[in-house]
Amino acid sequence: ADNIRIAVTPGDGIGPEVVGEAIRCLEALRAKHDLALEWTRFPWPSHAWHESNGESMPEDALEQLRAYDAILLGALGDPGPIDDKNRYLLPDSISLAPLLDMRKGFDQWVCERPARLLPGARQYLADERARDIDMLVIRENSEGEYVSQGGRLRKGTPDEIATQMEVFTRKATDRIIRYGFEQARLRAAERVKEGRTRSFRTLDGRTCESQVCLITKRNALRHWGDMYTEAFEEISQEFPDVAIHHELVDAACMKFVQCPWAFDVVVASNLQGDILTDLAAVLSGGMGVAPSCNLNPTDPNSPSMFEPTHGSAPDIAGQGLADPTAMLFTTARMLEWLGRKDPALAAAGKELHDAVAADLAESKGGQRNTREIGTAICDRIAS
Amino acid sequence: ADNIRIAVTPGDGIGPEVVGEAIRCLEALRAKHDLALEWTRFPWPSHAWHESNGESMPEDALEQLRAYDAILLGALGDPGPIDDKNRYLLPDSISLAPLLDMRKGFDQWVCERPARLLPGARQYLADERARDIDMLVIRENSEGEYVSQGGRLRKGTPDEIATQMEVFTRKATDRIIRYGFEQARLRAAERVKEGRTRSFRTLDGRTCESQVCLITKRNALRHWGDMYTEAFEEISQEFPDVAIHHELVDAACMKFVQCPWAFDVVVASNLQGDILTDLAAVLSGGMGVAPSCNLNPTDPNSPSMFEPTHGSAPDIAGQGLADPTAMLFTTARMLEWLGRKDPALAAAGKELHDAVAADLAESKGGQRNTREIGTAICDRIAS
Ligand SMILES: CC(C)[C@H](C(=O)O)[C@@H](O)C(=O)O
Ligand SMILES: CC(C)[C@H](C(=O)O)[C@@H](O)C(=O)O
Repeated sequence: ADNIRIAVTPGDGIGPEVVGEAIRCLEALRAKHDLALEWTRFPWPSHAWHESNGESMPEDALEQLRAYDAILLGALGDPGPIDDKNRYLLPDSISLAPLLDMRKGFDQWVCERPARLLPGARQYLADERARDIDMLVIRENSEGEYVSQGGRLRKGTPDEIATQMEVFTRKATDRIIRYGFEQARLRAAERVKEGRTRSFRTLDGRTCESQVCLITKRNALRHWGDMYTEAFEEISQEFPDVAIHHELVDAACMKFVQCPWAFDVVVASNLQGDILTDLAAVLSGGMGVAPSCNLNPTDPNSPSMFEPTHGSAPDIAGQGLADPTAMLFTTARMLEWLGRKDPALAAAGKELHDAVAADLAESKGGQRNTREIGTAICDRIAS
Repeated sequence: ADNIRIAVTPGDGIGPEVVGEAIRCLEALRAKHDLALEWTRFPWPSHAWHESNGESMPEDALEQLRAYDAILLGALGDPGPIDDKNRYLLPDSISLAPLLDMRKGFDQWVCERPARLLPGARQYLADERARDIDMLVIRENSEGEYVSQGGRLRKGTPDEIATQMEVFTRKATDRIIRYGFEQARLRAAERVKEGRTRSFRTLDGRTCESQVCLITKRNALRHWGDMYTEAFEEISQEFPDVAIHHELVDAACMKFVQCPWAFDVVVASNLQGDILTDLAAVLSGGMGVAPSCNLNPTDPNSPSMFEPTHGSAPDIAGQGLADPTAMLFTTARMLEWLGRKDPALAAAGKELHDAVAADLAESKGGQRNTREIGTAICDRIAS
């Protein structure tokens, strides 16, 4: 069989440093298990924009990437020169564009961000029950608030009007909601296997092993809120074993802080999901540990993209200070995902995840640099 | 001089109960200080919708309310009958419409939600420094994501498309940002008077007493994000004594949990402000204490509207279980606001605020009903 091929795009700032540790872990796993795995590096830093004709990635970047089974991305965000007002010369809307281009170009319509508070991770909430947080936030990743339609009329004048269109299709709504229910079922099965159980109530008083909570702002953004609600009710009929629930996005943010342990699977729109996943990330210990998966579950010829939720942190770049933990959890999820093509990779992903988790649990308070953390995890894998 | 006149709209669920206590406190204050204050009650519950031709408020409701100096609103959200699927027959998008109608009709373009963690209020965050949270979230309340433009094409079919337009004007952007800077200045002056100081850094390294943090999602919603950023930079020139800062809305949510003490004044769009104010409310102890002010600072003939951030809580309505604390803090802010028309009311507002805060500080763990809490606070005022 052919090797599974990964495109590695380290990106900006601390990206190359944390990606370096990911590669070392991949090498350790490949050596240990003789994995049929290979990778290619595409530097493509944002500041290439300055030298090229206004593009950070080459024009045929998506074509090049399409040949791979997955994309492992470090971080984007220009760490380049700053102007006399202390602003980066390359605004985020440009340096982060490749991220949105990949999501769109490869129709990575699911963004999946699991939130669990692993031992060793920082707990921001006072309530001890917040230790038990175990949710999966599923973000619609292909349309909605992110369709980039709109503009500025009478730009720069006192009469200026800026518009932004939100576009939601029933097709994309159905598929993300159905995906949510399927994940809820899988998670319940997983838990039962591990001897853990949870219990959620349906509206008619039955008890279920899992739940999907739909997020909208249907009391103010009524049109797509109603469409989401109708799709949710319809699709829920196919999953009588999964409890359903709805929260408005503002109330959901509150409840993420007040009782995060009450959530299982959460399905949200592109922007609302963006907000909720950042909140979920901090509840699972912060950006230092949070992975993010941009998935195309339907087209095997479209690579999915894996990135830590954190940014490029230009202020600490190049000093070996970045914590590669989030990057390594991300790499583990990529391997688990690739398990659908080669089961040996799923096992390797689980092994990497467990090694990173074990390192995190024992790391308490230590001051280790990027390399030392990577080495500790490679050693665990080798041993 | 004429009396200051308040329109009281108790609304639904626990609304009438908590408003009852607000009225008792207003009576106590009026008696004690001989205030030139009067009020009129407009029941207008949402379920009137069922009996009328599809309206909860009478057709000329806004006309009626316009004659008043302020509106004190309990809570909206239909507590009425539910159908066989356990859904309220009146969806939120209908029962909450009066709220949005008032904001729009009276051009209440500022929504102001202060967040401080008062003694006695529940602390959700583990970090002790979160005790020091002292921010004011200012939400653009007149346009943006809430313009209600959009619809559903091919409704109910697999090819359905739902759209929602966001519209931002430079005029409304300028006024909300300028308002934010003015509040930052006022807050700094207030703090200096009280002998408290805070310190924020400008980009060029100077130290300021106050800060405004602008929220956008300009890396994805570029058009209005850029317009907000340009307006912010321009207006900030008029306020060299106020430090400026920018956060993306997703990062802001994280930082509200990780370091809420680092914020002073926060300015956000309608929807992003909605989300951030709920989060700020929970950081100041939850919905039980959070006031919300919908202000028109420019037109003295347009009444401002004051409501607790909490909802109508139909599940506990009619049982005297609701905590009136948020409603009473809200009433205090209304009086303080009306101080611009009659300084005696500002003093009464401060007195009410202090009485509610003192009650909260001493209430620890007690199980008191709505009436008992109201009585305790009235007694403080009378004594
Ligand atoms: C960088 C930005 C465009 C992106 C998003 O909003 O999707 C980021 O916040 C994320 O969550 O991956
Ligand atoms: C009820 C709803 C329409 C409202 C809003 O979104 O503005 C509420 O959440 C609020 O914050 O006042």
